Amino acid sequence: MIDVRLAKIRSRMKEFDVESIAIFSSSDIFYFTGINNIEGVLIITLEDERLFVSPLYGQIAEAVLGDKVNVSVTLMKDIIDYLKKNDIQSLGLDFLSARIQYERDLSGFDIKDFTNQTKIVRMIKEKDEINSIKRAAFTARNAFMKVYPYIKPGKTEKEIADELAYQIRKAGAQKEAFETIVASGANASNPHHIPTDKKIEDGEFVVIDFGANVDGYNSDMTYTFLMGKKDDEKRRFFNAVFYAQLFATEMIAPGRTTVKDVEQRARDELKKYDLDKFFIHSLGHGVGIDVHEFPYINSKNSIVIEPNMIFTIEPGIYIPGKLGIRLEHMVLVKEHDVEVIAFTPFMEAI
Amino acid sequence: MIDVRLAKIRSRMKEFDVESIAIFSSSDIFYFTGINNIEGVLIITLEDERLFVSPLYGQIAEAVLGDKVNVSVTLMKDIIDYLKKNDIQSLGLDFLSARIQYERDLSGFDIKDFTNQTKIVRMIKEKDEINSIKRAAFTARNAFMKVYPYIKPGKTEKEIADELAYQIRKAGAQKEAFETIVASGANASNPHHIPTDKKIEDGEFVVIDFGANVDGYNSDMTYTFLMGKKDDEKRRFFNAVFYAQLFATEMIAPGRTTVKDVEQRARDELKKYDLDKFFIHSLGHGVGIDVHEFPYINSKNSIVIEPNMIFTIEPGIYIPGKLGIRLEHMVLVKEHDVEVIAFTPFMEAI
Repeated sequence: MIDVRLAKIRSRMKEFDVESIAIFSSSDIFYFTGINNIEGVLIITLEDERLFVSPLYGQIAEAVLGDKVNVSVTLMKDIIDYLKKNDIQSLGLDFLSARIQYERDLSGFDIKDFTNQTKIVRMIKEKDEINSIKRAAFTARNAFMKVYPYIKPGKTEKEIADELAYQIRKAGAQKEAFETIVASGANASNPHHIPTDKKIEDGEFVVIDFGANVDGYNSDMTYTFLMGKKDDEKRRFFNAVFYAQLFATEMIAPGRTTVKDVEQRARDELKKYDLDKFFIHSLGHGVGIDVHEFPYINSKNSIVIEPNMIFTIEPGIYIPGKLGIRLEHMVLVKEHDVEVIAFTPFMEAI
Repeated sequence: MIDVRLAKIRSRMKEFDVESIAIFSSSDIFYFTGINNIEGVLIITLEDERLFVSPLYGQIAEAVLGDKVNVSVTLMKDIIDYLKKNDIQSLGLDFLSARIQYERDLSGFDIKDFTNQTKIVRMIKEKDEINSIKRAAFTARNAFMKVYPYIKPGKTEKEIADELAYQIRKAGAQKEAFETIVASGANASNPHHIPTDKKIEDGEFVVIDFGANVDGYNSDMTYTFLMGKKDDEKRRFFNAVFYAQLFATEMIAPGRTTVKDVEQRARDELKKYDLDKFFIHSLGHGVGIDVHEFPYINSKNSIVIEPNMIFTIEPGIYIPGKLGIRLEHMVLVKEHDVEVIAFTPFMEAI
């Protein structure tokens, strides 16, 4: 499993003509070693891989990787020594995540641009990863179902968020995938609203964005509920978002559709309602070891959707001072279509 | 309050002879704008400051900063235009946090090394910051007291961690400062252990490391409890750590003691028990907007401890396969001595 991953990245290293890469991201380190939540530097060469960690992480690292670990208090020096000893000249770095200082420390090597390559490899999920992500999604939904009866006028946003955070852990998650968002009424016009002591009121839309972290993999989903009676205007707002999500999801033809086409499909649908100007973020993002990862589903990204990608489709509208609505589900791309993970039958047109 | 902070950093900018700095860290953006949890780029010049954000954050940013916000979908281009329009030639970056790509994007400017300067400014807390951090500490301790009666053999690590996470929120925190660690028996020999379904057993040490995030500021503390009967060996292990913490805390003379002296004092104490080799991390770290920030209390850091610093003192011993003990409290440096924040009278020599 790890071997397959290393083979994938080495194949890219050959393509980019680099003899080695340095990995600083703990998500990438988890992907390539199986060791989660560790800080260190993973050096991958064409023949070898070696994890450099401080003594703090020595015991955990060695338990998994044995003698492929280098415990040290002078990491950069030891990395340079290791590369020199192995006669390595070229080193690939991700310019979007590696720090300026790393490049300076490693200035004796031929530094090459290896930006985004680990993210591209991680974009196509393996079977065990898909299972973990599904577990993370069902765990979050199970937790949500426990909290669902309490979502009613009079409860505060924070009470619901705290309860959901608790139930996500109780349902078996290691932790929340991210801080749960509960946003009601005008507060929901901020997509990243932090739950407050504001009470939920009758007639408001309540946006609940949450996820679970299970086995090091995440889920991310958003439901929106209308408190109390529907009226024509509210029905129109909600259904615009609902159909934007539905049609964007249904249009996907694996191997042919580009992500920007999917984004465009959602925008087109919102435009029919003259609501596209209130859709102020991109349509979605990959989900896996990171809550937000490749592929990013936005209007600038023209990559083709391929089987075993997992990403969110989450159109929303945000009308300042008035309301917000977002519907987010995760899709697994299959050979001929997509599967909505942990599909929620209660999220339907109103 | 924000004005004082801007004045502090501008004084450093003059010292470093830079006309502008670019800030990418959301902690720094919070510090210099009062807007928390936002992504964007803050440009500070000697005369002006301007926050560049995507439309996603436009509403929140403008609500606080008004026309000092630039909402844009082409951030880097707009930043470059802004700098050029203001005839700015030199730009300071933190090389340890700024990405290689930023430096390349900004290659038309004279890039100067401004590494760690915002961290140095943030190291000395202002009155309102001290109050927030104290609230975060007392909130965490209040939450802990609710969970304390449940810490007994038969409970699992994860049950206690989940309950504490819940009570921290219930006590008024926005969220945990970090994922609570509950580590028992041999598990505690990993300082970063993630709570498992292992049941706590009689005779074990249980390490509980937790904190709260209140008003955007954090707390961080660790208690260790012995389940069941003391014996001479356990008493010796515990008291070694207890006295290391006590003497390291008591020795601090603000304006004179260096942080490495404090670290050394703790190590010396552990050495008396021949346990210093099991102390595998540094003695502490500053706490504030970030859970880990300046000053880092380690053997390489020779800065002098000054009033209004807040940092942890957390010696520990980690004996692989056997046990772990860590005691962590936060101290506020006063004019002539230090105050232990949210002092816990039940953590005493055994």
